[in-house]
Amino acid sequence: MPVPRHILEVRQFDRSFVLELFERAESMRSLAGPGFSARLQGKLMATLFFEPSTRTRLSFEAAMTRLGGGVISAEYAGATSSAVKGETIEDTARIVAGYADLLVIRHPEAGAAARAAAVVDVPVINAGDGPNEHPTQALLDLYTIWKELGRIDGLRIALVGDLRYGRAARSLAMLLTQTRDTELFLVAPPTARMSQELRLALSGAGVRVTELDDLEGLAPSLDVIYQTRIQRERFTDLADYEAARGRYIIDQSLMRRFNPQGIVLHPLPRVDEIHPSVDDDPRAAYFRQARHGLYLRMALLDWVLGEQPVVVTAYSSGTAAPAGGDSAS
Amino acid sequence: MPVPRHILEVRQFDRSFVLELFERAESMRSLAGPGFSARLQGKLMATLFFEPSTRTRLSFEAAMTRLGGGVISAEYAGATSSAVKGETIEDTARIVAGYADLLVIRHPEAGAAARAAAVVDVPVINAGDGPNEHPTQALLDLYTIWKELGRIDGLRIALVGDLRYGRAARSLAMLLTQTRDTELFLVAPPTARMSQELRLALSGAGVRVTELDDLEGLAPSLDVIYQTRIQRERFTDLADYEAARGRYIIDQSLMRRFNPQGIVLHPLPRVDEIHPSVDDDPRAAYFRQARHGLYLRMALLDWVLGEQPVVVTAYSSGTAAPAGGDSAS
Amino acid sequence: MPVPRHILEVRQFDRSFVLELFERAESMRSLAGPGFSARLQGKLMATLFFEPSTRTRLSFEAAMTRLGGGVISAEYAGATSSAVKGETIEDTARIVAGYADLLVIRHPEAGAAARAAAVVDVPVINAGDGPNEHPTQALLDLYTIWKELGRIDGLRIALVGDLRYGRAARSLAMLLTQTRDTELFLVAPPTARMSQELRLALSGAGVRVTELDDLEGLAPSLDVIYQTRIQRERFTDLADYEAARGRYIIDQSLMRRFNPQGIVLHPLPRVDEIHPSVDDDPRAAYFRQARHGLYLRMALLDWVLGEQPVVVTAYSSGTAAPAGGDSAS
Repeated sequence: MPVPRHILEVRQFDRSFVLELFERAESMRSLAGPGFSARLQGKLMATLFFEPSTRTRLSFEAAMTRLGGGVISAEYAGATSSAVKGETIEDTARIVAGYADLLVIRHPEAGAAARAAAVVDVPVINAGDGPNEHPTQALLDLYTIWKELGRIDGLRIALVGDLRYGRAARSLAMLLTQTRDTELFLVAPPTARMSQELRLALSGAGVRVTELDDLEGLAPSLDVIYQTRIQRERFTDLADYEAARGRYIIDQSLMRRFNPQGIVLHPLPRVDEIHPSVDDDPRAAYFRQARHGLYLRMALLDWVLGEQPVVVTAYSSGTAAPAGGDSAS
Repeated sequence: MPVPRHILEVRQFDRSFVLELFERAESMRSLAGPGFSARLQGKLMATLFFEPSTRTRLSFEAAMTRLGGGVISAEYAGATSSAVKGETIEDTARIVAGYADLLVIRHPEAGAAARAAAVVDVPVINAGDGPNEHPTQALLDLYTIWKELGRIDGLRIALVGDLRYGRAARSLAMLLTQTRDTELFLVAPPTARMSQELRLALSGAGVRVTELDDLEGLAPSLDVIYQTRIQRERFTDLADYEAARGRYIIDQSLMRRFNPQGIVLHPLPRVDEIHPSVDDDPRAAYFRQARHGLYLRMALLDWVLGEQPVVVTAYSSGTAAPAGGDSAS
Repeated sequence: MPVPRHILEVRQFDRSFVLELFERAESMRSLAGPGFSARLQGKLMATLFFEPSTRTRLSFEAAMTRLGGGVISAEYAGATSSAVKGETIEDTARIVAGYADLLVIRHPEAGAAARAAAVVDVPVINAGDGPNEHPTQALLDLYTIWKELGRIDGLRIALVGDLRYGRAARSLAMLLTQTRDTELFLVAPPTARMSQELRLALSGAGVRVTELDDLEGLAPSLDVIYQTRIQRERFTDLADYEAARGRYIIDQSLMRRFNPQGIVLHPLPRVDEIHPSVDDDPRAAYFRQARHGLYLRMALLDWVLGEQPVVVTAYSSGTAAPAGGDSAS
């Protein structure tokens, strides 16, 4: 698969793209020596955040800077700019595409990044479009699994928490359709269960999906626990929210039952759904995700914008990652 | 005319400055090859926006970055900084002038940039001072005309919409005093007509000014339609605002009547005063303005800050631009 | 004293650190020639401001840029990011430490930067933690004294204004414990006097402390007047605030009595506690502080992050600064 022009939704990615991207991320890692790279020198990225996200914005900007590119940034485009005067995302994108070589867009409306991509002649990366998707988050989540466990196939993965409104969990679930022999367990409160539509799509793509309630009983046999925050802002009914949150907490007691070779992930921010006492457990991989994400996004920017070939070290088998150094084991 | 130390108001610019600036902008265009230029390497620009404007801020920051300079940026200086503690613009400017080699200031008060310029020993560029002026917008508007039509003289130009409160239209009108043989048509709702004072100043400077209502009838003979948004925030009376907006809409019907060699400009953002179906018309030049503006601002920064001579390709006659490539024709 | 890993509080600094830092700041000054330095090329600084401060943020970002490093910046992290979703400063710091090589943190809570420093493996600089400390402000204040007066010892210094809530004055007072033969005069309204605890700590460290009311009488014999703003936001009682502010104004009349060789400092922003007519007096050093602060912060970043040795020009005696060029005399 050639590199896509725009990065808009998980559906775009096939297995070969994902695996090559992960290997490119590895080469970014080795490239992060003394000094910034000059691979993207002369390229300018614009980050347009109509909904604030310090973490995601800084991750993209760090990736671009480390590749030698330039950054222009709107941290708060929604409240401060022409948006309040009624400008469409299409107009904003067309104008900023006159300044920059790549747009990274976060927007509260589903489909906003795609609408921007339809009218500009520079690449657009969707950094979260409201309740819809967050494709680079899904990529960095799966990259973290690959990095930490050495493979993306044959895994038992539990998605926990908000599987209805949380776009990170849904985006990752969709990306898992590119893995093989995956058993997916959905552990969600009744008000935040995954939509039937998505469950059927996963099953149709060969992912074995099981909904269940007993995370404790499941823990010993899981490779990955992907915990998510119950997001108050996605609930219209406060009682539903209160019932949903705090139902599945990852604490020391759960960790004692959890597979000693497994990892815990979280798209972050977390509130209290993972107890801080778990942070020092080597299986707590959620802070390592940040650095993995940096390399993944460097690889993505480099691939989308770059003209220089990447020397990818060929690994022996299709899905074997160079586990070790950073891994949780 | 030597380059001015500060860029504060349209009145500063004479014809020779404008024409040399446009030719410098052309050389910036050719310089935008692979890699950023190093012309302003080691120079640091501070953008201080006390009133948000994503578009203008990003345009200046892209220009500086592409010239190899550095940027420090306050996207939201008004609400977040010492301004709320009662600090004057003079004090803020004096302090930031200790960090940076150039200040770009947007401020809600008329004269704010000039007050800053009076107390610092680095160049100051006015990026919009409230209801007053937006001189670099006027320069990029006229540069777009020069680029798209190949000349700045002998043109029939209509300014449409808010000619009383809109600083973009008023700034451009003032800059047109540096052109020759210009016929200017003012098409504004009764509540937003250009002040008599400005009309008299234009006439006094040799611009032939006509106020009229019938944009449709005028369209076939116009070279430039400069459409503007009726800005609600400039109206104190909501009824006046409602009466004014939506009176002169540029749509397919108007475009059918419009001069096939003409161009439509807009300082943007637009709301509904240009119908989106017009966007694909090659005469719709308002999105090309963004890129023209980038080069114009690069030329301005380079001229104000630079020490390296610019090699300007000499064109045969005084006002002939190298029309072609990007033009609408 | 080796360079500290983190810069969190004034207490960390001893006399030898302070003096070497000042000499390093001098070498930064000479290094600020044409072009940015490449000393920190490849290093990335993240500024996380949970409480806005345009001045301090831009100062750090200018320093980093002039040293060739990269910057990722959250101007408004408190209101826009995960913080509103309930994320702790520890979590935010851990994630951003995955992107950047250094964190500069401003936060409304005392101890926030220290809490961040405890969990990350990159250096953290405290850029103000609520009512607590602002250690780099104290360093640049004392550096300004050293630069302007040529020494840090044997000085008569008055701290004026808010000595209870203002962290700048308190931080400087603590740093003065590293100077010798200092006479410190505290001139504060009754509701904003320095805490007894801090006064005792100063006395215990050998600083001769006197509280008094008559700034006019004292002025002729002072070397430094350090004026501060009475900060409304630190007062819970509006009547106390009104009584406190405006009690000690520095105006032309006071300047006529003031030591002709002395200097006036202010951490800025000022409101009306220094009359603008004083600005042109060569003893008004408060705007020169901004540039001194730039070099001081460059030295600090370079020392904390740098691997290249700094060539410090050795001055003859321990505390003699190269007074002259920029000084007020």
